[in-house]
Amino acid sequence: MKQFINAKEDMVTEAIDGAIAASGGAIARLDGYPHIRVVVRADWTKSKVALVSGGGSGHEPAHVGFVGAGMLTAAVCGDVFASPSVDAVLAGILAVTGPAGCLLIVKNYTGDRLNFGLAAERARAFGLSVSMVIVDDDVALPDLPQARGLAGTLFVHKIAGAMAENGANLEACTMAAQRVINASRSIGMSLDTCTVPGSLKEDRIPHGMAELGLGIHGEAGVEQVASGGARDALAKVTAKLAATMPKTPHVALVNNLGAASVLEMSILTHELLASGIGGHIRLIVGPASMMTALDMHGFSVSVMELSEGDQALLAQPVQCQGWPGCHKIQPAKVLPLPDGLSPIRAPASAHAPTKAFLRGCCAALIAAEDDLNLLDAKSGDGDTGSTLAGAARALIEAMDTLPLADHTQLYRAIGLELSQTMGGSSGVLLAIFFAAAGDASASGLPMREALQAGLARMRQIGGANPGDRTMVDALLPALDALDHGLGHAAKAARDGANYTATLTTAKAGRSTYINADQLSGHVDPGAEAVARLFEHLAS
Amino acid sequence: MKQFINAKEDMVTEAIDGAIAASGGAIARLDGYPHIRVVVRADWTKSKVALVSGGGSGHEPAHVGFVGAGMLTAAVCGDVFASPSVDAVLAGILAVTGPAGCLLIVKNYTGDRLNFGLAAERARAFGLSVSMVIVDDDVALPDLPQARGLAGTLFVHKIAGAMAENGANLEACTMAAQRVINASRSIGMSLDTCTVPGSLKEDRIPHGMAELGLGIHGEAGVEQVASGGARDALAKVTAKLAATMPKTPHVALVNNLGAASVLEMSILTHELLASGIGGHIRLIVGPASMMTALDMHGFSVSVMELSEGDQALLAQPVQCQGWPGCHKIQPAKVLPLPDGLSPIRAPASAHAPTKAFLRGCCAALIAAEDDLNLLDAKSGDGDTGSTLAGAARALIEAMDTLPLADHTQLYRAIGLELSQTMGGSSGVLLAIFFAAAGDASASGLPMREALQAGLARMRQIGGANPGDRTMVDALLPALDALDHGLGHAAKAARDGANYTATLTTAKAGRSTYINADQLSGHVDPGAEAVARLFEHLAS
Repeated sequence: MKQFINAKEDMVTEAIDGAIAASGGAIARLDGYPHIRVVVRADWTKSKVALVSGGGSGHEPAHVGFVGAGMLTAAVCGDVFASPSVDAVLAGILAVTGPAGCLLIVKNYTGDRLNFGLAAERARAFGLSVSMVIVDDDVALPDLPQARGLAGTLFVHKIAGAMAENGANLEACTMAAQRVINASRSIGMSLDTCTVPGSLKEDRIPHGMAELGLGIHGEAGVEQVASGGARDALAKVTAKLAATMPKTPHVALVNNLGAASVLEMSILTHELLASGIGGHIRLIVGPASMMTALDMHGFSVSVMELSEGDQALLAQPVQCQGWPGCHKIQPAKVLPLPDGLSPIRAPASAHAPTKAFLRGCCAALIAAEDDLNLLDAKSGDGDTGSTLAGAARALIEAMDTLPLADHTQLYRAIGLELSQTMGGSSGVLLAIFFAAAGDASASGLPMREALQAGLARMRQIGGANPGDRTMVDALLPALDALDHGLGHAAKAARDGANYTATLTTAKAGRSTYINADQLSGHVDPGAEAVARLFEHLAS
Repeated sequence: MKQFINAKEDMVTEAIDGAIAASGGAIARLDGYPHIRVVVRADWTKSKVALVSGGGSGHEPAHVGFVGAGMLTAAVCGDVFASPSVDAVLAGILAVTGPAGCLLIVKNYTGDRLNFGLAAERARAFGLSVSMVIVDDDVALPDLPQARGLAGTLFVHKIAGAMAENGANLEACTMAAQRVINASRSIGMSLDTCTVPGSLKEDRIPHGMAELGLGIHGEAGVEQVASGGARDALAKVTAKLAATMPKTPHVALVNNLGAASVLEMSILTHELLASGIGGHIRLIVGPASMMTALDMHGFSVSVMELSEGDQALLAQPVQCQGWPGCHKIQPAKVLPLPDGLSPIRAPASAHAPTKAFLRGCCAALIAAEDDLNLLDAKSGDGDTGSTLAGAARALIEAMDTLPLADHTQLYRAIGLELSQTMGGSSGVLLAIFFAAAGDASASGLPMREALQAGLARMRQIGGANPGDRTMVDALLPALDALDHGLGHAAKAARDGANYTATLTTAKAGRSTYINADQLSGHVDPGAEAVARLFEHLAS
């Protein structure tokens, strides 16, 4: 099964139950499963105009996700891509309509028109005030007498919903809804069809092509066009919108049709604002999944001419999961880079013993280059020796720029030097070792403890524990033994390094990918380098 | 191109620009494109502990979508699935860190650990207080020494973010973050791999299989398992979580990995709560796309043991786009169905002239059955005659149950009868016609005007205008002429019906799918039925 559903016939009720469970008690449902699937505001008191919408399922979060204070009062859910029955719509109307009446918001599909229309008549026979608007925002075919209802429907829900919440009467809500419909235009584009549960996925769109002007039920777009990426997609979509859009301030709604990634949706939003109509867009809703077509890899853009008061109505807070908010478009704020990206370099200072000490260490590493490379070839890509020798040579080169007389600053300077010359994980880890040792030294710790602090930080970041077959296996015992003299430290480092040859399961670093037979009997090259260094110092 | 992107190298900066543009000024970025991609809270004053997170891109809305009051202070964005550089992380830290210090929240990937770790060292060299936690919530392989960081990271952002916003110090935030990490467990499952821009999509998962225990970078899951739908998926996922979960109250986070449909995510949520661990889940975050792997058709579930105070911190409002809120699990509220779904039937009453009138109309329609079927065969499926005759026969059958003496109620009763016996669009439309006429009659309008009100409502719902080649072309002129007598009405209906034979473009109803040649010269069967009816009445 290529979808996360159970039995097809339980899909809609299970999804509704999931949405209700995750709503924190904000929404409830009417009894009447499986035929009557009506979700209502749990806090509704019938004191204001009720807004009822719905239609086929498969468009989630529409419409259940828009039930809440400030948007819909009830959502009536049909089967996937099929209108709900007259009885279901009537149940929704009767459940939420009080003296203030009810506005039905219906997308322009025959089944929805008829079933909502007849339900409205039956509700009126009970003396209820019911009005109905039909949303037909699709501009895919400008001459189509019966344009479809697409994501522009959300503008109707939001503006009429905010008005109803603010106490407007049914006539005012209905007129506003009709005005919003007249001012709204939408068009969609997709790279792939959607997977209708129980049906084989239609392989309709050839590779390299996209469909423009498509609906939300998997029906074919009005044309197939070459797919040239995000900018090209927006050029095609906005050309269709621009054809009939007045050059006045608009709100745009960027809708994910189901399976476009969040990354793509942000890029599409960027391109929308950079497009030919971008200058007319003052407010934006999304990008978000609002009116989907199951798992369709596509998007739609809806625009609406703004009238006075719309901005406040669009921005008014709502209590529902599906509405992503409406934000003003403003120039991106770009803050200057902070100072300090060029690292602080302590002034160079001379100190002959330190210089000699460092030169000696570097020479020891350079001398070990080939041996370390050979060891590394057993468990890695054979470059540990070259990497360390290269860093040692760079350090010798930089010797006269270092603060040799200030050991605290010297740790940090060596860390910086290594981070810039060594590259790779080991360069970063050694840089962290020396930088942390410098911090510890700055706070007054003696050398051994400063180095131990460096090791602790390096282990935190690198994640290596003793026995993980890394340089830690030599460095940790060496530093522990350092108070007893360099000879003891060198012995401890060597013992530690030799111990790594008995470890056949590496738990950190690249050797984790190597099997036991390949590792057995070979000392870890990082541990060997540490042992060589301490043996040099003790000699 | 099977994705909505432009050049691969601009993908991340364009997505960031889109997110900033759609944020209404809530977030800003640092200068330094293309290498430094750091998004910060636009309202930040460095007066509290800063939270910095980030990592590779491709996980949107993580991390830019979580920048805002109550969650992250800055997000540092690498290339898709690649760690940001040390310099980028450092820029983020330096840009937002004040005297209260900075907490780095890093997912457990080597590149992120190293680059964030070294950046932390360099920031400390400036005297800044920087702490760092590493999130390793993945339980795919319980014995893995280096578990990955997955969507459980959101718990860390939320709880430490709420504490920082409430004024907690760096040590308290860091300790809380570490506690949350220790208490969090995540695991993912997917039906398909993701499409990494610039790479061919790997076709790794055979049909009918799913991957369990996968990361967020398209890497293979730890096992391939049979894919048996939503319930089965949750059984497998929760078994992994349950293995190490204490039986104490938890919060769950249901994360869309990118391309699961909203419908599927709600079903998965339903199944999670019905699963073996469902009883331990007291709070829920999502379902929503929070930590994605581009367009992966999968999901992950994260759970966290709740400690005292967590509920308030999780529920605390945030100012960011990505957080869907945290809600209490409570039993679904199921409201009783409203009264009135069984339609009101007015009591039967006798009225001989009305009975004769209705019987005559029905007889006329029954007599026209074959002719109407033949006409319909030209433009439809040839059943208009049978449908109308069937309804007429049913009406005759029901005659003695009708409120014949109360014409207002009679309209409504006929509408109800037609809606229950005719089926199809025409049944609903005629039901609407009679129901609306009944309403108009109830409000005191005389017969002609009541029928005209019915026609107006039927046209609103059905969308048919004069000239659209429907029954409206006969009915509208007939009703207009009715004041001049039945003879005039019958003449007008006949003229209108004949006129439809000249209309070769149907604009409403099924004939819209038929071409001009097929329609030319044939009267619309609905219009013909109306003409026959009026001719009968006038005879």
